This record gives sequence, structure tokens and C-alpha cells, in this order.
Amino acid sequence: MGHSSRAALGLDFGTESVRAIVVSLDGVELGSASVNYAHGQLTERLPSGVAVPADMAFQHPGDWLDSAAAAVRQAMSRGNVDRAAVDGIGVDFTSCTMLPALRDGTPLCLVDRFARELHAWPKLWKHHGAKSQTERINALARERNEAWLARYGGTIGLEWFFPKMLETLDAAPHVFAAAEVWLEAGDWLVWQLVGGDATQLPRSTCQAGYKAMWNAATGYPSPAFLAALDPQMENVVAEKMPGRLLSPGERAGELTAAMAERLGLLPGVAVSAATIDAHAGVPGAGVAEPGTLVMVLGTSSCHMLNATVERLAPGIAGVVDGGILPGMFGYETGQAAVGDAFDWLRRLVGHKDFAELGAKAAALPPGAEGVLCVDWFNGCRTPLMDGSLAGAFTGLTLNHGPHHLYRAVLEATAFGLRWIVDVLRESGVPVERFVATGGLPHHNPLVVEVYADVLGEPIAVAAAGQGPALGAAILGALAAGPAVTGLSTAAEAIHAMAAPKSGGQPRVVTPNEAHHPQYDALYRNYRALATQFAAR
Amino acid sequence: MGHSSRAALGLDFGTESVRAIVVSLDGVELGSASVNYAHGQLTERLPSGVAVPADMAFQHPGDWLDSAAAAVRQAMSRGNVDRAAVDGIGVDFTSCTMLPALRDGTPLCLVDRFARELHAWPKLWKHHGAKSQTERINALARERNEAWLARYGGTIGLEWFFPKMLETLDAAPHVFAAAEVWLEAGDWLVWQLVGGDATQLPRSTCQAGYKAMWNAATGYPSPAFLAALDPQMENVVAEKMPGRLLSPGERAGELTAAMAERLGLLPGVAVSAATIDAHAGVPGAGVAEPGTLVMVLGTSSCHMLNATVERLAPGIAGVVDGGILPGMFGYETGQAAVGDAFDWLRRLVGHKDFAELGAKAAALPPGAEGVLCVDWFNGCRTPLMDGSLAGAFTGLTLNHGPHHLYRAVLEATAFGLRWIVDVLRESGVPVERFVATGGLPHHNPLVVEVYADVLGEPIAVAAAGQGPALGAAILGALAAGPAVTGLSTAAEAIHAMAAPKSGGQPRVVTPNEAHHPQYDALYRNYRALATQFAAR
Repeated sequence: MGHSSRAALGLDFGTESVRAIVVSLDGVELGSASVNYAHGQLTERLPSGVAVPADMAFQHPGDWLDSAAAAVRQAMSRGNVDRAAVDGIGVDFTSCTMLPALRDGTPLCLVDRFARELHAWPKLWKHHGAKSQTERINALARERNEAWLARYGGTIGLEWFFPKMLETLDAAPHVFAAAEVWLEAGDWLVWQLVGGDATQLPRSTCQAGYKAMWNAATGYPSPAFLAALDPQMENVVAEKMPGRLLSPGERAGELTAAMAERLGLLPGVAVSAATIDAHAGVPGAGVAEPGTLVMVLGTSSCHMLNATVERLAPGIAGVVDGGILPGMFGYETGQAAVGDAFDWLRRLVGHKDFAELGAKAAALPPGAEGVLCVDWFNGCRTPLMDGSLAGAFTGLTLNHGPHHLYRAVLEATAFGLRWIVDVLRESGVPVERFVATGGLPHHNPLVVEVYADVLGEPIAVAAAGQGPALGAAILGALAAGPAVTGLSTAAEAIHAMAAPKSGGQPRVVTPNEAHHPQYDALYRNYRALATQFAAR
Repeated sequence: MGHSSRAALGLDFGTESVRAIVVSLDGVELGSASVNYAHGQLTERLPSGVAVPADMAFQHPGDWLDSAAAAVRQAMSRGNVDRAAVDGIGVDFTSCTMLPALRDGTPLCLVDRFARELHAWPKLWKHHGAKSQTERINALARERNEAWLARYGGTIGLEWFFPKMLETLDAAPHVFAAAEVWLEAGDWLVWQLVGGDATQLPRSTCQAGYKAMWNAATGYPSPAFLAALDPQMENVVAEKMPGRLLSPGERAGELTAAMAERLGLLPGVAVSAATIDAHAGVPGAGVAEPGTLVMVLGTSSCHMLNATVERLAPGIAGVVDGGILPGMFGYETGQAAVGDAFDWLRRLVGHKDFAELGAKAAALPPGAEGVLCVDWFNGCRTPLMDGSLAGAFTGLTLNHGPHHLYRAVLEATAFGLRWIVDVLRESGVPVERFVATGGLPHHNPLVVEVYADVLGEPIAVAAAGQGPALGAAILGALAAGPAVTGLSTAAEAIHAMAAPKSGGQPRVVTPNEAHHPQYDALYRNYRALATQFAAR
């Protein structure tokens, strides 16, 4: 039986589950499946029973492969896909989710004597235990005028690679000493798929560039900088971060026989270097060209853009050469609370779902009848990069109800987005088109309408419901190479595999001409209020 | 049968109902009853079916006497009180609730041809139709440097007497022309009780002083000022505001035979001049001395204080010589949303009552874990006197729940109170002791605890649940005079009739020594935030 098309497999590793998708090289989704991790997030106890403090979050590395094996088998079976049809595999992962391992790849937490050590476990992207270490790194980088700092808008983040590593050195020096290899979870997963010794470990330039201050020209932070942080850090890059740096879409290797057996595939399939889940959303949304802002709207929002110029903009999460797609400068910016903020508001006002809130909020005029919100309920990422900032509502009267607050939160996230676009443009980075992807645009159409009105520009809503997984599959096809796939460039692969199919034309939301000028005035109020609060 | 003590009757006219209370001259409550107005508030339609606009609110004058007659009979009967035992009657009323009448006392709205005229009906205190007229009066008074303006903190209020009258002249000049007498509802009620022609109409210095810019030395605003507002207003005081000005507790006259029949009492009982409901709460709380702030905590809060000095403080609602009790300067200040704000928040977060909110809020530390509120949900009365200001929450994160917001609102009203106390003290008005009364302290003990912590001073909670009604009864006893009652001064009457009885000792809430310094810092933050918002 089996589908006759050649295909690629995308694996999208999230916070609670992994999704597998099989896509034909001409862009037909053949099958997909999502499988939860058996241990979920480890936020209360380790499997050994050790309590997890409130600001920490871990994952179980065994879950990644177990869930992936189940998801791949289900996706292949649902699509009735012949395993010989799979030409390439791409992997995207949350980031920075990172772990210490032995040189043979064994995660340290799976070595018996480390099972009860918090810091031996993979730290999930949202793990917030490295606050003081982040401050030390930022302060030292400013003091030493480290050139890499400007590529991250002047501030590195709490959730990044070196803060999490330094936290381990501070809190559990014996774990740090026992760690032979430090790596991103996405890189660990690809390493498991393709095998090989640690010197050949395939590391993603995307993850290294956005989360570990790596740059093609200058590498990681210098031994001198790391030594100034802590003498034991001096040679950590040379000694504990072996491997090869590869762009997403570059071939990391081929599926080993053991892993092919485990996943129900054939050995020898090309595997791409990993990418970050949000960044996989760019090819997944069918975007190959510079100047299109791909807005991945979810619990938080990540806005990504490719450009032909490298500019240093304040508060961006990072600019990395080839960080999203080969041959372009990839810009990442973000908003820390979007869907999360909507959901928080919904719970705050005691609603079970968004049906009533959404309908009533949609009926309100721009400006929510006087309620103005600042959306920093989880701090401000771009452009202020300050996790200590908090949210606010102003203009409240006894006549306002839950739907006024909800609309105000929604509008505030739109103003936050417009601020990011303004910062990019003012820094000389062209932003010409807008594509919305992620879960929110499909669940919550009002969001995209308000965003279009506030930006004053049309927004295309990507038709694919599985952006990052599709993006990963495209990277898998790229890794297989043109000789196998006939797709010779990234743009060609993206257009072939992520072009809208019949019945899946992208919905384009155009701005309401009456609303945009009103939002101009409201946006100025938002910026003024944000300036006041940032200065407090 | 009948109780043998001599007694006084208090009538407390509220927004929805009238309460009658019979109290012995030594302070035992003999009986009480509350009876709703048959027409309630007229906020949607007049009895004739005419629609009432959203910012207007009226009452039916027939309801006042009908409900009072029923309440007096029930209270007398419940207390088994001999009608011959009643020596005096006192009346408190919401204010400024005012109406146009004929010279024989007939309310204009009860004259057939005016039944469908909105402006012929008594305007309830909360009627907000006179916005533009209030602005005109304030602007003109500033322009002309009217001396009386400073007694009201520099701004007169939207709900006062002359704005409501001027609104009628603007909107319904034929109603204005037909009005022969303009008066407060409390004065109208007392006039009905004691009879007499319009030249003898007993007007309350309390209502005139706080709501009609009257002063013992200079009277009402001058004809020149009124003419500058509108030529038709020039002689309104001389022509349409006849009567005698009497302090609360002064004898307005004796109960007529007809009215005695209607109420089930004996003719000839002494009747006091009226007072405002909140102001009756001062004697009702047993407070006779200067320097004690009586905080009437309800949907809004009214804070009253007697002093031996007259000082002009910014934003106070008014200072009136003898306005609360004879022989002292009475200061009135206010907060526009207190219980109303708590109730709004409760509805906003979808709770049916305060049980869970209150318990969880009480368990939080001062400062509501970072949430700071500005409590201007219905504008700011004292000290800014600006109804256009609005409320705010700051410091919000995804970890905050409804109880954080509730505690923040509660704390914000405490900070607003402290601001008022600071303004009075900085203006040279001594504030030495604090008494809480009204409904809130009994329903919501957390309020008084937080207020004591924020003020850093003990607060006595008045034991009487019926403060204003008891205060009115005390004024009734004063009107009867020492020859009848044996009570020769206001202080003597207050101490005799409103002293705590066995089982009714006032609860004194003392500040928590650990909390007060924390609140000092939070109060500074509140003031800084309020200053920012007031300047926006």
C-alpha cells in the first residue's frame, strides 16, 4: 500500500509532548501524531521523589525518545506511509532546554548516583533558577564591554545556556565537575539519532547563536570572560562543549540502525541539525524571503524576521547569521506573556472559556472604553529585556466589566508588537510583511484583527496548524540534499512544502480604516504609560 | 403597658428606604423598623412612564411620608412604646436631594401638568445631570474669586443644590418659572411635620452649608454672582428660597395634629431641623468632642470631624460652622468609591460573595504581594475633587489572583483615607482619634484592620448598627430642650443616648506594629502613583 510520494519527517519537541508530522516533498501532510511525555514537566518532584523548588523546571530525557518513537509510528501508520519513502528528518526543540551528559551521551541524571541531584536533570527552557547568575553575566559583560552583548540588544536572558550552567557550578559543584558534555536538548536528540562520538556531536548554530552567545566569526564567549565569571569556567568550551556547529537544514548525519529500529524507520535517513521550535515556524509558515515578520503567537509570542543586513537593535533576543535560514541574518524578538496573559485574565474573572469574553470584547470600540493595559504580566522582553517589570490596568471605573479588561490586555499585546516593529525599523531592519502563525490566530480571530488594526497593515494567517513541525520536516528535506529531493535551495523547499494547498489559502486580515487612526493615539498613550512604569 | 422611659424618635431617610428608631433618653433602643419606598429610585421611568436618562435619578415625595408613617408605627409597636413617651423627633436625609415646590409645600411633580416633567421631580443626591452647570459655577466662582469657594476646598460638587437648580433652568425653563420654593428634601419633610407657611420653612444649616454654599456670616452666593450665572437666577434666593435657617438639634416646630394622626404619635412633639444622613452619624457614633474623625464607611465613605478652628483645606467637601454639632466647625471629606469598589471587584472576578475573597485576602501580607491599586473607580473626592480621574492596578503578574486585587483595592481606600488625614493635619486641623461607623465595619472586619495598620492608630468601631438614625433621635431630644429631657448640652445628650451599653462596648482595633512601617513605604508608593496619574 503506502503513499507513493517521497516524504520528510518533522519532530517538534514541546513542553508537554512531542509532535511528529510526515509531509510529502510537494507539501501534502500525510500523517501526524502527538504523544505526551510520560513524566510531563518535572516541576514538583524528581522521579526519585526529591522536591523541585518553585522557580525550577526539568524534563526526563527518556521521555523524549519514548514519546518520539510512539509519535513517529502513529504518524506513519495514520498516513499509511511506506518507511522507505522518508528521505529526511528534522528536529525542533524548546530552547534553551539543556543538560549535562557523559561523553558517551548518557544524560547525567540517568547515572544512578546523580538521580537525586536537581542540577543533573535537563533544565527546561522555563527553569528560572539562574537569576543571580544572569545578573552576574550581564554585569560582567557590560563591565568588560563584550562585543557579543550588542547582538542580544544589550542584555542576555535568564533562560539561556551559560546562566543555567553557571547555576549548576554555584549550587552543585560536584555535578558541574562530573559533567563531561554540556549541550542543548535538541542537539542531544539529534546526536542520539545519528550516533558518533562527542567530538562529532552536531550542534545547532540556531540554538548556540540565540542562547549561548555563539557567533560564526568569534565563537562562544572567550576563556578570559568565562574565567572572570568563575575560574572553573575558564576552559569549559574547549573541554566540555565538543562538537561541530551546523546550520538548521545542514546534514548532521544519518539515522543509526538502532534508532531506525526504535522509530520504525529505515537506517541511513538524513537528519538535519536541530533548530529552536519557534524558529522552525518561519519555514513552517512558508516564509523564505527577508522582510516578513513571522509572528508565532502562543502563550508567549516570538516574532522572527530574516534580513539581508545585520543591525544591532535594542532589546532583541538576538541576531544570528543563518540562525533561522541559511544566508540571512535571523532576528528574534519576543513578548513574554500573550496567550498566557489572556488565559490569566480569563481565570481572574472566573470564566470557563473565552466564548462570552471574546464576543463582548469584540463588540467594544478600540480603546476598551477607556481601559488601558500594560502587558508586562511576565516582564518585558523586547525591547526592554527586564523580567522584573509588571503589568497594569489604568482608566478603570465602576462601569467596566471583565470584557473591558480582556480587550485591554489584547490591545496591549498589539501595542507591544507595534513597539517591536518600530524598534526594528528605527534600527534599520526592514519589516515589510506580516504572517501570523502558532495556535492563537486559529483559536482567537479577534487577536489578528486587533493586531492588523494597530499595525495598520494586512496580516496573512498561515494556513498550516502545525507550523514548527512542518518547518522541521522542511529542514529534514534540506538535509537529504538536492540529489535526493530535487529541491536545491531553502526557498525552493519552503515554497514546495509549505505553500498553501487547495482549501488552505492563507486568510489575510486587513486593517479597519476607521480603527487604525484611533489606535495611533492609543498606542502613543501606551508608550507614554510604559515609559512612566519603566522609570519607576 | 408601654415602656416607662422618656424617648426620642429618629427618622433616617435613605436612598431606598426610611428607617425609624425609638431610643430612650438613657440610650436604650426600644424599637426600630425599616420600610422601603414604594417607587424605589426613579432611574428608568417616572410613574407617568416618561423615560429617565442614564445620568439622572429621582424619588417620589409621596414615598417619604408613606414609608415614614409605616416605619414609625412598626418601631413603636415593636418596642411597645407609649406614644406619650416620645419627646422629640429628629430627621436625617440623603443630600443634596432637592425639589421645586409650590408655596403651600406641594411638590411640583405632584401638580398634574408637571407629572411628565423630569425636572419637576425631586432630584436624588446621586443625580448626575448637572455636569456642565457645575463646571460653569466653578469657573465663574474662580473668575470672580468668590470667598466661599475656599470653604469647599476650591471646588463645588456635581451633586449640589445650585447645579441641580441651574440644570432645571437650562433644560426646563418653564419648570424653573413655575417653582415657587426650592428646597432640600430633608427640609421639605420637616416642614410637612411642623406645618406653617413658606416664610417659616425650617431650613437646615447643615444642608445649606455643605450643599448650597451658605454661611452664617455671608448667607448664600450673592445676587451678583447668581446673575452672572444667569440673569433669571439673580433673585432666586430672595424670591424662591424663603424660610428660617436652623442648626440640627434646634427646634423647627411641633408635630401638627394631621401629621401626628398619620404617624400614630401625639401632636405637639418637638421636631428638630434636618441634618444630612452621614453627618447624623457623628452624634450617632457617640462622638461629641472635637478631634475625632468619624468615618462613615459604606458604598462611598464620608469622614467627618469637628474642630474648634476653621481652616481651609484643599479638596474638602466643606467646613461649616455648626454644620455637624452646635458650636464647632464641622469638616466633611469623602472618598467616592469604597464599598462600591469592593463590590465592583467582587463582581469583576465572578464571586457571589466575599467569603473566599476576604479569607484569602486576609492571609496575604501588606502590599498584596506587589499589587498596588489607585482607588479612583468613581473619581477622587478629597483631596483632588476630580470626578474624571479613574482607577488603576499596577504590579500585576501571572501569579496574582482575585484576592490580590481585592486586597489591593482595600489597601488603596486605606491609603486614600490616610491622604485625607494628612491633608487635614497639614492644614492645621487636629485629627486625634478615629471612630468607624456605617455598614462596612460590621460586614467586613478586614477593612478596619487594614485602616488601623495604615493609619498606625487605633480605631474604635461604633457599636450601634444604626448610627445616623440614632444621631437623628439625639437631635430630636435636643429639639425637645433641657426642660423636657434634662439633657442640657449636645455633649450631654450624645453621651447619655449613644454611650456604649452593656454588651455593646465599642471594639477597638489596634494597629499591627509590624505592618505599619511596611504600609508607610507602600503609602509613599501610592502617593507617587496617584501624583503620576493625576498629572496625566
